Amino acid sequence: MEIQVFGVRGLPLIRQGDDLPGMICELVAFEDGDILTVASSVYSKAKGLTRDLESIVPGADAVRIAGKTGEDPRFVQAVLDSSAAILLEDPFILSELPFGHIGVRAGVDHSNIEDGRVILLPPDPMAAAAEIRDAIDRISGRDVRVIITDTCGRAFRRGQTGIAIGWAGMTAIYDYRGDTDLFGHVLTITEEAVVDEIAAFANFVMGESHEGVPAVVFRNCHTWKGHDAVYFTPEEDIIRAALLKEHKKD
Amino acid sequence: MEIQVFGVRGLPLIRQGDDLPGMICELVAFEDGDILTVASSVYSKAKGLTRDLESIVPGADAVRIAGKTGEDPRFVQAVLDSSAAILLEDPFILSELPFGHIGVRAGVDHSNIEDGRVILLPPDPMAAAAEIRDAIDRISGRDVRVIITDTCGRAFRRGQTGIAIGWAGMTAIYDYRGDTDLFGHVLTITEEAVVDEIAAFANFVMGESHEGVPAVVFRNCHTWKGHDAVYFTPEEDIIRAALLKEHKKD
Repeated sequence: MEIQVFGVRGLPLIRQGDDLPGMICELVAFEDGDILTVASSVYSKAKGLTRDLESIVPGADAVRIAGKTGEDPRFVQAVLDSSAAILLEDPFILSELPFGHIGVRAGVDHSNIEDGRVILLPPDPMAAAAEIRDAIDRISGRDVRVIITDTCGRAFRRGQTGIAIGWAGMTAIYDYRGDTDLFGHVLTITEEAVVDEIAAFANFVMGESHEGVPAVVFRNCHTWKGHDAVYFTPEEDIIRAALLKEHKKD
Repeated sequence: MEIQVFGVRGLPLIRQGDDLPGMICELVAFEDGDILTVASSVYSKAKGLTRDLESIVPGADAVRIAGKTGEDPRFVQAVLDSSAAILLEDPFILSELPFGHIGVRAGVDHSNIEDGRVILLPPDPMAAAAEIRDAIDRISGRDVRVIITDTCGRAFRRGQTGIAIGWAGMTAIYDYRGDTDLFGHVLTITEEAVVDEIAAFANFVMGESHEGVPAVVFRNCHTWKGHDAVYFTPEEDIIRAALLKEHKKD
């Protein structure tokens, strides 16, 4: 069946305290099985997960790193405060967040918010996705699936793409191991990060700048079986290990 | 406007010499502006870009690496033959292809083909995309955009996703630099890898195993301005440099 994808148009600028699921339900007639993707930035704004740079006193590490990256030391302090481990300090901070995601500047963002404030990633994006899913069920009676998206750079390739940081009603990975290919061979290693594939296209539909479409609905997508282990363990992660070795030499 | 996404269903197993654009045009009534995504594997099969493992004599490096990865030395030789630079030998070969892409096993694939054969990536996927685009224009008179997709693992996150290796009728990157955000701030660093975002969702629709949907059409997608510099230069690529340093220590 044809898949339909549409942006949720007409949302106002989101402010702390806004009932985001309620506002979305006023604009979308959901059907069971729809996948709703929501930009983490609007979830965070609704929840007040922002910081005022004026209230931040940068520590010695933040001042030192800011001297290398040319950023505001208070912004760098916000990035360090959001990080569980630093993998790279410059030319940009690459860090691991407590929930497992590795990303640039810990996802701390000063775009699409008033000057002097930054938006943080939700500390528990899985719970955020579940919360939105439950709220939509309560309001509309529809069983939708939810992905919280962020944008992030990649290794080896220029440009950001949308990725999933939280999801509910689905698994992150479509696990094909044990399935057969067109010639009957058993697939032994194939795991597809479907939540990231959906989040990527959601980000394309959202746009990045002044277009203001922070939520996108996917209709008629198939379901899949799999698991949620999208983050490598430190032992599995070859690139994390190589970067940490380099970092320790500085 | 709502975006429609549909798999091209009904294609037979593709064989060398098949007129892939012609076969697709028999199944799809294209509209101007449609984006057609095609799995590199079917393009390569139609062009005979496959190798018979029996015809490959593995060299010393292939035998040595195969001893570490547990793979067939002839398969490893095919990977080395497709590679311009090796970044990692084990637990899997990560290499750079002549056209700039960095990927696992150089994209050499033994799934969805007869036993004893492997599928190679097209050596010039940009030309492949342009060729399909031109053929569809000739056959249907429609001005479509084309992306050649592959699947690839990522740093830091488990699972493969679809990526773009060739494109025609669009730029790889949507360059937002100079645009303004919702609050009027000029965006200075934002570049979005839109071809990869579209390829990712195409891969979700294609499926990986026996579903046999190697082409997907996107209708009503917006256009964008940007550039094609999706591959970092070696000087820009921090992670490539860190891996090469590790690799040289072996």
